[in-house]
Amino acid sequence: MTEPTFFNKVESLKLGEIAELVSAQLPEGVDASEAIHAVAPIETALGGQISFLDNPKYLPLLETTQATAVLCSKRYAPKVPEGVVALVVGNPYDAFSIVSTAFYPEAIKPLPYFESDGGISQAAHIHPTAKVEKGVCIEPGANVGAGAEIGSGTTLGANAVIGQGVRIGRNCHIGANAVIQHSLVGDHVILHPGVCCGQDGFGFSMSPMGHKKVPQVGRVIIQDHVEIGANSTIDRGANRDTIIGEGTKIDNQVQIGHNVEVGRHCVLVSQVGISGSTRLEDFVAIGGQSGVAGHITIGMGAQIAAVSVVREDVPAGGRFGGVPAKPVKQWFREMAALKKLAEKGN
Amino acid sequence: MTEPTFFNKVESLKLGEIAELVSAQLPEGVDASEAIHAVAPIETALGGQISFLDNPKYLPLLETTQATAVLCSKRYAPKVPEGVVALVVGNPYDAFSIVSTAFYPEAIKPLPYFESDGGISQAAHIHPTAKVEKGVCIEPGANVGAGAEIGSGTTLGANAVIGQGVRIGRNCHIGANAVIQHSLVGDHVILHPGVCCGQDGFGFSMSPMGHKKVPQVGRVIIQDHVEIGANSTIDRGANRDTIIGEGTKIDNQVQIGHNVEVGRHCVLVSQVGISGSTRLEDFVAIGGQSGVAGHITIGMGAQIAAVSVVREDVPAGGRFGGVPAKPVKQWFREMAALKKLAEKGN
Amino acid sequence: MTEPTFFNKVESLKLGEIAELVSAQLPEGVDASEAIHAVAPIETALGGQISFLDNPKYLPLLETTQATAVLCSKRYAPKVPEGVVALVVGNPYDAFSIVSTAFYPEAIKPLPYFESDGGISQAAHIHPTAKVEKGVCIEPGANVGAGAEIGSGTTLGANAVIGQGVRIGRNCHIGANAVIQHSLVGDHVILHPGVCCGQDGFGFSMSPMGHKKVPQVGRVIIQDHVEIGANSTIDRGANRDTIIGEGTKIDNQVQIGHNVEVGRHCVLVSQVGISGSTRLEDFVAIGGQSGVAGHITIGMGAQIAAVSVVREDVPAGGRFGGVPAKPVKQWFREMAALKKLAEKGN
Repeated sequence: MTEPTFFNKVESLKLGEIAELVSAQLPEGVDASEAIHAVAPIETALGGQISFLDNPKYLPLLETTQATAVLCSKRYAPKVPEGVVALVVGNPYDAFSIVSTAFYPEAIKPLPYFESDGGISQAAHIHPTAKVEKGVCIEPGANVGAGAEIGSGTTLGANAVIGQGVRIGRNCHIGANAVIQHSLVGDHVILHPGVCCGQDGFGFSMSPMGHKKVPQVGRVIIQDHVEIGANSTIDRGANRDTIIGEGTKIDNQVQIGHNVEVGRHCVLVSQVGISGSTRLEDFVAIGGQSGVAGHITIGMGAQIAAVSVVREDVPAGGRFGGVPAKPVKQWFREMAALKKLAEKGN
Repeated sequence: MTEPTFFNKVESLKLGEIAELVSAQLPEGVDASEAIHAVAPIETALGGQISFLDNPKYLPLLETTQATAVLCSKRYAPKVPEGVVALVVGNPYDAFSIVSTAFYPEAIKPLPYFESDGGISQAAHIHPTAKVEKGVCIEPGANVGAGAEIGSGTTLGANAVIGQGVRIGRNCHIGANAVIQHSLVGDHVILHPGVCCGQDGFGFSMSPMGHKKVPQVGRVIIQDHVEIGANSTIDRGANRDTIIGEGTKIDNQVQIGHNVEVGRHCVLVSQVGISGSTRLEDFVAIGGQSGVAGHITIGMGAQIAAVSVVREDVPAGGRFGGVPAKPVKQWFREMAALKKLAEKGN
Repeated sequence: MTEPTFFNKVESLKLGEIAELVSAQLPEGVDASEAIHAVAPIETALGGQISFLDNPKYLPLLETTQATAVLCSKRYAPKVPEGVVALVVGNPYDAFSIVSTAFYPEAIKPLPYFESDGGISQAAHIHPTAKVEKGVCIEPGANVGAGAEIGSGTTLGANAVIGQGVRIGRNCHIGANAVIQHSLVGDHVILHPGVCCGQDGFGFSMSPMGHKKVPQVGRVIIQDHVEIGANSTIDRGANRDTIIGEGTKIDNQVQIGHNVEVGRHCVLVSQVGISGSTRLEDFVAIGGQSGVAGHITIGMGAQIAAVSVVREDVPAGGRFGGVPAKPVKQWFREMAALKKLAEKGN
């Protein structure tokens, strides 16, 4: 990367410090006091920098890397070129994450948009009945509605809108232009820009005379340590609550329908859609662009491949894929059979 | 739900009043003056509350419900436990909608974000040439451009942007952070937060020298009683108008291309995409995540299953599904044939 | 279209001027000084108006058009009704674009939302350390963060948020409510409303103990003449940069993951998703709703059909489609084989 960068970086870390951070052993003869100045991609890393190998696809780049040190698994350590320090770790991506955080401690949470350490802007619109704790940052143009409550350490990005009565916990980051209504948000939550949370669910009593709006009087509950990507939409419940469980990470442009319950530590990749009243148990992972039907349950730890369509319950631990989603083995078999058939038919 | 709730609720309704609202007959011996204090989900409803059974999937919950009364069809009335009042109705979901509206009359339209009964905020930006009727609510940070017109009874949510010359009718709700330009919007329209309406259609004259922008000089016409979900995008026409017909309901994250005409009382579920110059006749329903090609027509009353891809005209009344979409019978046959083939091949 | 329109139109152009603009020859006997007052769709065009025929689907409309003149290819010129001037051109859509631009010169770039020729609004929030060149338009409620730089001729729409240190080049249009952070934006760039650019990529070190955020310290680089549609999201790089190459056109609701490199003059239609670290070479075109896996390369000039799923590298010039994407011939063969099989099985 050329200048400018957007984060302050720690000047340097010693190789020995890094090894300790990631619980790796320094190879014999390596100078523990050697300074490392940055983390860098494996193909552009230079002397004084550290990189990592996680995806074997990048193995050819490992063999020619100019980095001073590389975080890698035991398996690939023999491929590290001579003169490059191999720091052998159990999970190279996790180790990279640790080192990267050590270099860029402020990148672990989104920065304010207008200025760092900004306090409460005179250009924010805060209703006199709202309760704002000490140590809150509210940027210009942000709105805090009547009776809303904002916990200390939280940042409301520029032009974010916090509706009447909403409660936001402590140490949260609410992205610029996000709109939060009818919601209770825990601590350490990150909502990226453009997130819409708590609007009416899509409920209509349909008839040949037209469609009658069904009141949506539930709420959205977002538990601690949740992160939700840009322009995602979370509808509030109809007469239940929509719930996003603790530690769950949601990517950009994901749609969550009314009454949905997402468990703890789930991962929903971008452009996924979850239809109303469906329940995801804990540690469910769903690949990008997948769709999940309404009123079903995806069991604990189940994994759904990208671009799948889940129409029925998935058992705990299931690995499903396809349209409609089925166990991956069956899915692969069907794709292979179809390919064969087409070749024969030729 | 635990406290807080976000809507004011009517204290109670008498069982007889409710029966009358939904045109049900109170079973013999039931006290018409018994007070009902809330509507509640069937599995959490307690004495003094009313629930409903619509989806047979929840039948087991009916059999153990603690509700005082349940709205259900004639077919399921025998399953209502002794001591629970069965209110037999033709359409339980519609009846639930009616009762729910009676308890929460203000939930039938989104609430303002900053405060109820707010009038025109000093912190809104209204161009001196804009025309704003009496009885309009404009929240802090909302923008109304030159020559725009806003009808009485309409709310412009915090930070909404109404572009130059746009006309918004009466009794509309424009969501926080929505952006409306080059559009004419009727009465009783609800646009949820983050809706973008009237931006340039995606028109380029492409060539190996690069792609040249084609002027998009049409408009968006949104007729009365339309509702559009959060973060949906409606492009204005190229040299026609993009039209959303009266009473049509559009969910979150739906994309409507330039020149598209959507008929009256259509239903488009979330993440649907309609390509340019396509026409949907009245009462078309399209399931979530489906895509519709450009320059085609979907006939009156046609229903498209979720996650389908419509590449060709669909006749009026057609029930289509799959990729590409075909009559559902043929679609099911193909899925079954593929499954069988894969099993054989095993 | 009925009134009001939103763009100023040139009063009229002479038929001879139009012929010259599009390099067409006026048929013998046609009066070059005849005034043309508007471009119009082929089925509604009247005397004094010009239309075009591009898509053969509209051929029946050509045969009954009331237009004074029609832009069309040599092939369809014989179908132009008597009394209508056929202007024969190599690329009718491109010619239409040229004529349309001549009538609506200001439509070639989005108009400001609040007022034309607005300058810098007193109601904008501009950090004292930001650098704003002369000739910039900043609308009410727009935010410009600390150290950001805005080039001359650029418009920042109402309530747009430009984060700390961001650089926007000259003659750009940043849509209302767009949020740009950690980004370097070139000249002549158009970002439509609601675009979110430069937020954290979706990077977590996952484990049964929960998912740990990986710092995302890269940037977004948007080169000259790029256009990005409403509510699209572009994540910044993890430790590389996310790059959108010169002249690339991106439609609404497109998702671009971290570290993605999109080449020059690519076209991504609405609701496409590109997963992290994938590379598109120049002139790649991807149809609507398609998904592209991470860590792969799509070669120069490749074309991917709408609603496809690209899981592996695509060679330069490849024409791929389907789920997973394969050469279109193979894809069509598979669909035909499946259809046949289902018919047989009946």
